[in-house]
Amino acid sequence: MEAVHPGSGTRDELLDVTGISPDLPSRLVRQLEFIAEIDRLKTVLRLSPLLAVDRRENDAEHSWHLALMVLVLAEYAAERIDIERTLKLVLIHDLVEIYAGDTCLFDDAAKADQHEREAVAAGKLFALLPSDQGAHFRALWDEFESLTTAEAKFAKAMDRLQPLLLNVGNAGGTWRAPGVTEERLRQRTSLIADGSPQLWDLTEKLFAFGVREGWLKNDS
Amino acid sequence: MEAVHPGSGTRDELLDVTGISPDLPSRLVRQLEFIAEIDRLKTVLRLSPLLAVDRRENDAEHSWHLALMVLVLAEYAAERIDIERTLKLVLIHDLVEIYAGDTCLFDDAAKADQHEREAVAAGKLFALLPSDQGAHFRALWDEFESLTTAEAKFAKAMDRLQPLLLNVGNAGGTWRAPGVTEERLRQRTSLIADGSPQLWDLTEKLFAFGVREGWLKNDS
Repeated sequence: MEAVHPGSGTRDELLDVTGISPDLPSRLVRQLEFIAEIDRLKTVLRLSPLLAVDRRENDAEHSWHLALMVLVLAEYAAERIDIERTLKLVLIHDLVEIYAGDTCLFDDAAKADQHEREAVAAGKLFALLPSDQGAHFRALWDEFESLTTAEAKFAKAMDRLQPLLLNVGNAGGTWRAPGVTEERLRQRTSLIADGSPQLWDLTEKLFAFGVREGWLKNDS
Repeated sequence: MEAVHPGSGTRDELLDVTGISPDLPSRLVRQLEFIAEIDRLKTVLRLSPLLAVDRRENDAEHSWHLALMVLVLAEYAAERIDIERTLKLVLIHDLVEIYAGDTCLFDDAAKADQHEREAVAAGKLFALLPSDQGAHFRALWDEFESLTTAEAKFAKAMDRLQPLLLNVGNAGGTWRAPGVTEERLRQRTSLIADGSPQLWDLTEKLFAFGVREGWLKNDS
């Protein structure tokens, strides 16, 4: 839910690149300003608890974890995927949250205008890059959002599966929050099946385990 | 410097994967155990301060940031690089620190046996994976360490350059620590030149800026 400066029209520079030297090429200046600005992703907190220590995960850690999951689990993709593009998709998919904040899967009000808020954020953030690179990043983010390719479907499956693993390792974690039920969770994560039928089998086993352990309420 | 459980011979499982279901394929169980174990990288702290808020960076955030730098700065590589392999190198290069801890660039005693400690950690961590994947991860880590390819040289250049940017954005950051001088810093980061002569030009400008600002002591 936290955004660093949601809706802010101006940007406080984290690194004054032009102050370093008047001789830096303008293309490199823009690239360095982008690299500095995305440091903010490390401060955008998700609801998911870590496995290793008792604190919430941030978006940069989450994005790294998804990239490692792509490397380890690619063999389960529904269709053959290009690893390089799938890595790019998971590495950049949450960048828009630097300005739009993290949106909870069960916050229906926030979900309603999520894509609109994130598209504005994408326009603002990727404009920092040289235009060719900004267009490339925007195309990757659009691909992830539209789920039109095998790579995007698998990337989204990783994005949905990872917090389930964190919750199982935390005695249910956010599954125990008010309003979360097995049926609602299944609806919100069913995209995993499009990316990988085998990992959807795993997901169903995670849900059954959560219900057996009493961490997840069963509607039926 | 912190390791989560340096030198520990046993592993406390962060996620009891076999407890989820007796029906999970053994290959998937090993993959999930690895994915859970590497959550610990999010707890390994580096000395570098973030740009966005006042705290130290962890290895997972750092690895993600390097991956984004590869995507943005690849055009400056000394030789043409394969992006997929370079991404893999930066994403996994610090995993060994889960058991071996982060080693400061200026801690000569720790540097002396760093590779030996990290090789032991690699053996332990990658053994969690199915053997084909464990061998692949080990080969990537060995490639990063041995700097024998254009991809490894560029990945290492990112690893050296990123904390310099964080320090410049933090009024010198760890450059102001006792024992750090421009000459020692240049020695410890000179590998950047092998990965990218153009980014070495940038590095020299960062040093000159640090000296002018009084953050970095000049030996001469």
